[in-house]
Amino acid sequence: MADQGEVKLLKTWSSLFGLRVVWALKLKGIPYESVDEDLTNKSDLLLQYNPVHTKVPVLIHNGKPICESLVILEYIDETWSQNPPSLLPQDPIQRASARFWAKFMDEKALPSMWQAFTKKGREQEEGLASIAEKLKLLEAELEGKKFFGGEEIGIPDFALGWLVNLVPVFEEILGLKIVDEERHPSLSEWSRRISDIRVIEESWPPRDKLVTKWAAIRDHFLATARASSG
Amino acid sequence: MADQGEVKLLKTWSSLFGLRVVWALKLKGIPYESVDEDLTNKSDLLLQYNPVHTKVPVLIHNGKPICESLVILEYIDETWSQNPPSLLPQDPIQRASARFWAKFMDEKALPSMWQAFTKKGREQEEGLASIAEKLKLLEAELEGKKFFGGEEIGIPDFALGWLVNLVPVFEEILGLKIVDEERHPSLSEWSRRISDIRVIEESWPPRDKLVTKWAAIRDHFLATARASSG
Repeated sequence: MADQGEVKLLKTWSSLFGLRVVWALKLKGIPYESVDEDLTNKSDLLLQYNPVHTKVPVLIHNGKPICESLVILEYIDETWSQNPPSLLPQDPIQRASARFWAKFMDEKALPSMWQAFTKKGREQEEGLASIAEKLKLLEAELEGKKFFGGEEIGIPDFALGWLVNLVPVFEEILGLKIVDEERHPSLSEWSRRISDIRVIEESWPPRDKLVTKWAAIRDHFLATARASSG
Repeated sequence: MADQGEVKLLKTWSSLFGLRVVWALKLKGIPYESVDEDLTNKSDLLLQYNPVHTKVPVLIHNGKPICESLVILEYIDETWSQNPPSLLPQDPIQRASARFWAKFMDEKALPSMWQAFTKKGREQEEGLASIAEKLKLLEAELEGKKFFGGEEIGIPDFALGWLVNLVPVFEEILGLKIVDEERHPSLSEWSRRISDIRVIEESWPPRDKLVTKWAAIRDHFLATARASSG
């Protein structure tokens, strides 16, 4: 295998966007140094390498930064194209479909999930209805396939990774089911398929720490909403 | 030149997202059939080919649809890689940078511009402050370069196309300047460079029709806001 150069990843212990990059690097067998950021006290490295958003993840390859998780995934796939698996299908129409769904997960599904999780009352109901509608589309898209791109795991699967490890946490905190076997057989099977991949399983943040963290985030959002309407 | 296959583009006469695709096809010299949609009465073709968003643009290549303008641009670049110009730089780091800025223009700059245009009072002030901040970053990024990707026009330039043809329309309607020579010398020069490209200049929708359309859209948003707060 060719020299990979120096690869460093700025992330946090719980960032769902950071995990996408961890999975890609690990699946492709690319050695890297992981640097955990504290977003309440951002490092000079983060401010220097992602001055526009000052957010994680940032991949630093031979001293050059790449920001935005979906952009990083494309970079990894192009730079280490010799390392399987390919993160995008080879066929241009299928590549376009994979990119379409990755965008959909970030721009449509995730905001709906976020609304369902951080709001209450009517706004939460709307968020739940909205995520249900998005899941219906994802379920239909996935039917009969192993992964969103076909036979191989790839960028859209990473983009929906939060469904596998974060939605169960949200369900526990909210005390309701969002994804279930009956309405979402393909998504449920896909979730198990993702969870069974060793390098992904090994990288899950501890469940109890996630529950504590996200319960506090929800409380914070509800308190802020009360304060601004009170 | 190889057979291009059958290329059809669903768009509207004024869609800024549709124009991105028009420019890419024309610059690469790809013959296509243009189908203008009426979004108040969507065609069966649009509902069939973009069932998820039912939005333009949709590129249909040999009967297969590709949706989302940035995804379409990547598809065009991959499928007709032999036709210059390349819409992304060859170097992986520069490709990542081009994708980063295209995302920034869609996800950060355009929503700020939208807020500045469709709101009034304090909300509009916030929108204007926000777009000013985004333009400062874009100005710094562009300094010393012909286009966002370097020497060649490409995806991030198309993604910011609305700055060239739509912002002057917004400025006229609002009666204020958003982009100016003094604060934005590089963006101003870039705008002229884009406007001077013949296939882009030819594709501008008529200025007076744009002013009428967007003034009506702004009135609609302000009336809706009054109705919901009144």
